[in-house]
Amino acid sequence: MNPDTSSPILPPVKRVAIIGASGYSGEELLKRLLQHPGVEITLVTSRQNAGQTVAQVYPRFGSQPVARTLRFTDPQVDAVAGQAEVAFLALPHGVAASYARPLMAAGLTVIDLSADFRIHDPAVYADFYGGAHPAPELLAEAVYGLPEIHGPALKSARLIASPGCYPTSILLPTLPLLQAGLIAPTGIIADSLSGVSGAGRKAELDYLFCECNESVRPYGVPRHRHLAEIEQELSLAAGARVVMQFTPHLIPVNRGILTTLYLSPSDPLTPTSVGEFGQRIQQCYQDAYGSAPFVRLLEGRALPDTKNVVGTNVIEIAWRLDPRTGRLVVMSAEDNLVKGASGQAIQSFNLRFGYPETTALN
Amino acid sequence: MNPDTSSPILPPVKRVAIIGASGYSGEELLKRLLQHPGVEITLVTSRQNAGQTVAQVYPRFGSQPVARTLRFTDPQVDAVAGQAEVAFLALPHGVAASYARPLMAAGLTVIDLSADFRIHDPAVYADFYGGAHPAPELLAEAVYGLPEIHGPALKSARLIASPGCYPTSILLPTLPLLQAGLIAPTGIIADSLSGVSGAGRKAELDYLFCECNESVRPYGVPRHRHLAEIEQELSLAAGARVVMQFTPHLIPVNRGILTTLYLSPSDPLTPTSVGEFGQRIQQCYQDAYGSAPFVRLLEGRALPDTKNVVGTNVIEIAWRLDPRTGRLVVMSAEDNLVKGASGQAIQSFNLRFGYPETTALN
Amino acid sequence: MNPDTSSPILPPVKRVAIIGASGYSGEELLKRLLQHPGVEITLVTSRQNAGQTVAQVYPRFGSQPVARTLRFTDPQVDAVAGQAEVAFLALPHGVAASYARPLMAAGLTVIDLSADFRIHDPAVYADFYGGAHPAPELLAEAVYGLPEIHGPALKSARLIASPGCYPTSILLPTLPLLQAGLIAPTGIIADSLSGVSGAGRKAELDYLFCECNESVRPYGVPRHRHLAEIEQELSLAAGARVVMQFTPHLIPVNRGILTTLYLSPSDPLTPTSVGEFGQRIQQCYQDAYGSAPFVRLLEGRALPDTKNVVGTNVIEIAWRLDPRTGRLVVMSAEDNLVKGASGQAIQSFNLRFGYPETTALN
Amino acid sequence: MNPDTSSPILPPVKRVAIIGASGYSGEELLKRLLQHPGVEITLVTSRQNAGQTVAQVYPRFGSQPVARTLRFTDPQVDAVAGQAEVAFLALPHGVAASYARPLMAAGLTVIDLSADFRIHDPAVYADFYGGAHPAPELLAEAVYGLPEIHGPALKSARLIASPGCYPTSILLPTLPLLQAGLIAPTGIIADSLSGVSGAGRKAELDYLFCECNESVRPYGVPRHRHLAEIEQELSLAAGARVVMQFTPHLIPVNRGILTTLYLSPSDPLTPTSVGEFGQRIQQCYQDAYGSAPFVRLLEGRALPDTKNVVGTNVIEIAWRLDPRTGRLVVMSAEDNLVKGASGQAIQSFNLRFGYPETTALN
Repeated sequence: MNPDTSSPILPPVKRVAIIGASGYSGEELLKRLLQHPGVEITLVTSRQNAGQTVAQVYPRFGSQPVARTLRFTDPQVDAVAGQAEVAFLALPHGVAASYARPLMAAGLTVIDLSADFRIHDPAVYADFYGGAHPAPELLAEAVYGLPEIHGPALKSARLIASPGCYPTSILLPTLPLLQAGLIAPTGIIADSLSGVSGAGRKAELDYLFCECNESVRPYGVPRHRHLAEIEQELSLAAGARVVMQFTPHLIPVNRGILTTLYLSPSDPLTPTSVGEFGQRIQQCYQDAYGSAPFVRLLEGRALPDTKNVVGTNVIEIAWRLDPRTGRLVVMSAEDNLVKGASGQAIQSFNLRFGYPETTALN
Repeated sequence: MNPDTSSPILPPVKRVAIIGASGYSGEELLKRLLQHPGVEITLVTSRQNAGQTVAQVYPRFGSQPVARTLRFTDPQVDAVAGQAEVAFLALPHGVAASYARPLMAAGLTVIDLSADFRIHDPAVYADFYGGAHPAPELLAEAVYGLPEIHGPALKSARLIASPGCYPTSILLPTLPLLQAGLIAPTGIIADSLSGVSGAGRKAELDYLFCECNESVRPYGVPRHRHLAEIEQELSLAAGARVVMQFTPHLIPVNRGILTTLYLSPSDPLTPTSVGEFGQRIQQCYQDAYGSAPFVRLLEGRALPDTKNVVGTNVIEIAWRLDPRTGRLVVMSAEDNLVKGASGQAIQSFNLRFGYPETTALN
Repeated sequence: MNPDTSSPILPPVKRVAIIGASGYSGEELLKRLLQHPGVEITLVTSRQNAGQTVAQVYPRFGSQPVARTLRFTDPQVDAVAGQAEVAFLALPHGVAASYARPLMAAGLTVIDLSADFRIHDPAVYADFYGGAHPAPELLAEAVYGLPEIHGPALKSARLIASPGCYPTSILLPTLPLLQAGLIAPTGIIADSLSGVSGAGRKAELDYLFCECNESVRPYGVPRHRHLAEIEQELSLAAGARVVMQFTPHLIPVNRGILTTLYLSPSDPLTPTSVGEFGQRIQQCYQDAYGSAPFVRLLEGRALPDTKNVVGTNVIEIAWRLDPRTGRLVVMSAEDNLVKGASGQAIQSFNLRFGYPETTALN
Repeated sequence: MNPDTSSPILPPVKRVAIIGASGYSGEELLKRLLQHPGVEITLVTSRQNAGQTVAQVYPRFGSQPVARTLRFTDPQVDAVAGQAEVAFLALPHGVAASYARPLMAAGLTVIDLSADFRIHDPAVYADFYGGAHPAPELLAEAVYGLPEIHGPALKSARLIASPGCYPTSILLPTLPLLQAGLIAPTGIIADSLSGVSGAGRKAELDYLFCECNESVRPYGVPRHRHLAEIEQELSLAAGARVVMQFTPHLIPVNRGILTTLYLSPSDPLTPTSVGEFGQRIQQCYQDAYGSAPFVRLLEGRALPDTKNVVGTNVIEIAWRLDPRTGRLVVMSAEDNLVKGASGQAIQSFNLRFGYPETTALN
């Protein structure tokens, strides 16, 4: 028996538009919003799929009646503004901002899954994404949609910048430790392994089955775009500018990110301090995430495994102190399309509009 | 918005035991019953995992409170009988019957996922499974748990013999055609491809990653045990004894069965009869499954793909007439652990106890 | 110790061009011809890779000195004719013929991996490939490059039409039985499973990792183009027109084809005839392939498995009689890029020019 | 044309025994030694497969005549000593030493693929492997079989301790830099991803297809046994004791190791020193490996990819300087069963007995 099904009085249903729902994140968003009791999907747009039903584009939704009648349309700002109170943007960076501005002007709440509003400083955006920010005046009010960290601000946000998959897997394990001063803000290394869906649904040779299967490879070394938002959030937590090392790798799974973090305790570890320092880390994580429904702090000898989180909005976290090297090794696992993208965006939606945080995320 | 969440008045919650929940089917059963509003899991048993919590054995359930407190116990008939009204048996064949008998005697409804009660004739059981049937007196009242076919009988069954994965993928596409006399009962061939979870969670060399990955192989040729129940049900539909050809293959996916059926129209196809015969097939399927929530009849040029059904209780069916050979080719796709095992068992549970058929199966 | 390395007196080295070497078959051809002691690769062409070295296009060859100096050029008939005695064509159908004609006119021997010269009857070509044959005058002298069947004719062929991957997996197990009159020419069914490399190296959504991984699906039902050449060769062996059923499926492996054939013995099987008929089949295969270096007739309980042939030029064959249905089930496994394409083309090259049949194929 | 086939005068054929050839490394050893012109395999042993032919145990060798006659025997020291001049040991650690001692006493050259003789200091062995070393008197003369580093010593070695897969992937990229003083001996981090064959051919739940497929996970954190030999070799190169961080991960491929190394330049990088320091690294690698046939130094924007080395004895190396963090990131890719195990052992064999280094390794 699922005790969550006892019926709370839910806020009124929101009319929701999904703009750009033809990729893997859009599909995951659709899947979950179709089941959300507080959501009426009034519009789904996709330039390439306009005219087709959701069931035609995504056969796996074909047994849901709504999916057989709801049709993709061309993305028209006026239509969206007229039919929805909330818009999820699953668009390429740069394009998202051009929709966010008029939709917000028309009074909609915007939840953007692109990078467009994640970076507070337009100069950093320009540096990492190449070119001036398309809507700099909106940056100040965008809230970085990491619910475990920015939950209170999300409750009244008009513009939510939902984080990327790598940043989520790096920030959630690191921010509490930095905030508590347990680790040094220097020398941070994140080594991440991502499933192929992270590259999107694009017809490119590099992502063909035969190019990815039986293959592992690093890419984007040493300066991946996601560093911009990661370092921003780490710096805010540390109260000092953080510059870090990040190496993404592509591995042959559909979904999942596994991140291994190499961190330095603020005070050097000694044989006598190891035990006590370990307790402080445990307490720090417990304080930060003990009541967070989607952070699973592993116990005992368990280590994260993407297969235990795929299909869920959960991030697993485990840590080990290495007295030989004096380092703290922290590992996390998440589903890049759920906690790393669409699930997290819905978690923000839930907080923003007063639904139980786990709605449509079980 | 999910219209199914409008609250019907549900039957009272059932106390449910899961006997033998340490394999992949048991895990899927647990996952869905933990979310079923009409189920209180009072007992889960597993000889090898006794004493451990569900969350320890299945880390992916670790974020559900019940999974952190519910502990596996040794399977004791008395304890089960005292604490549950319904027992799901996820046990090896032969063992299941030894639990079913005393549990039924104690008044429980039994839903058995093994082969023990699928075959009506004890001689056929002995022929295919080697050895006398362990509880022949119960065979007469067992209902073969294919809800789309035996729905009415399931509503009052005390003993439900839930079908195997291959049989489901073969029977659902074939039975209506046989019953309508559209195809000949002779010469039926089923060529099936199964994911590795179908072999169970056993530490055997044959199912190691490196033995299955980048490999495809037939097995059990030409006489697989599942033929017993398949031919029984086909014969019932045809009103004549059916003997068929069946070749299972192992392919490197976790889940999913794809079956291709080669069937002969009752009357020879001619260039002029093809169109009209196609309409009769379509009508036949429409009549049989038009309102079945878990059978998806594909339209247009779509063909079944396991990736569109994995994780769901849906079976996809498509067909093609080949005027060159005069044959009817029918293809189906299902998730072997859901529609092919645990999902189907819950579908039967729902029918048996008056829950909406799709409860916990979305 | 490899006894094959005792040095026979080899024929003089041939100057060889590979036309269109940018796909998976081209890569496999290159890999093996680079190691062939009787081959000097004088030219490799590829429109899209012109100017790049072989090592740049295929990093895995980067440790071979020749691969670091040999550069792809634009395919120019004159250049090819001037620099090579033999041309392997790894081009799309239709395009291949436009190269074959002038190259043959210039005196080269052509080994074509496309479908252009496999079909003797231009009307059948037009029916299956849509459009008139581009060089019908050459069809008469093309030899279908199945060395185990057409070996003698290959020794003097000027134009070798190397078979496709599916046809090889179907024809080698079937032809000897048909020729010996052991099976009926009617009712033949081939159910085949192919790795994704069979679809070529094309940037299409359907072949992305996430679309193929954890997926199995039939395609091209019921009329795949390869039927044209399969039925032609079966008909020649049977001495009567053969029309058959063929269903290809896509499975998530890089390489490998597994084919299961459903055949009818010429005389009905009876309980008393089964044993003797089995001996005739075994003898038939032994006579046909007992000394064929690349056909492995499995013994005892062994069944074909693609992982045992991938990377080799071997085809595995096993068979079972089913006294219940009266059918003969034959199964084969091969590497679609080796025995199903490039390896077989080199096998023909070896026969044509007097090299040991296994040269560069171990 | 393969220029290596011009016939050098080869040393006389060696009689070779393979002890413990029932795992994945043993299979790879067999595959290559069966093709080695300087090797006559006189004996293969395997307790579990005794009595069976090589072709029965490894169907993929079934088309090689030797594999159909050579039979596995029980491993008996006397028989080995009487029939072979060289013994490859593919045995678990601890067991290998018990064979090495009597075989060396009988005059054989021993090439050991286990960890037993890799560690010079018995105290370190005891610390990492638990228990006293079984043959400490042999440690002094064992040569660590990394041919690119210890080539001269290998030429006269009686006992070769062939390195493990992770150590090879870490040492080859790191040793030249340490030796040249270009990087600091402190703070070294290696993050490695290994295919499942690295876990051996063992019937354990953890390595079942369904437990590894669609999964990525770290293990052995923070103190993997391979650290003992890695730190020993790094320390020798650095002239100082090196302690490093190493995190292995299991990824769903059959073969391949991808290692990402985080290193600190000896002198802090400045915007002006980056270019010149990069040249020194490039020169260092060029000096170390410019003529090494199995080390591929990638150029331009290329990064290592396991699919480009699988099935070969090559290790790919690429590096990047990160001026933002001041770090040097080095990446390597190898086949764990070839350069990481059996190929490397044969490379040592070739050097030891005067065969061209690449014999049987192409």
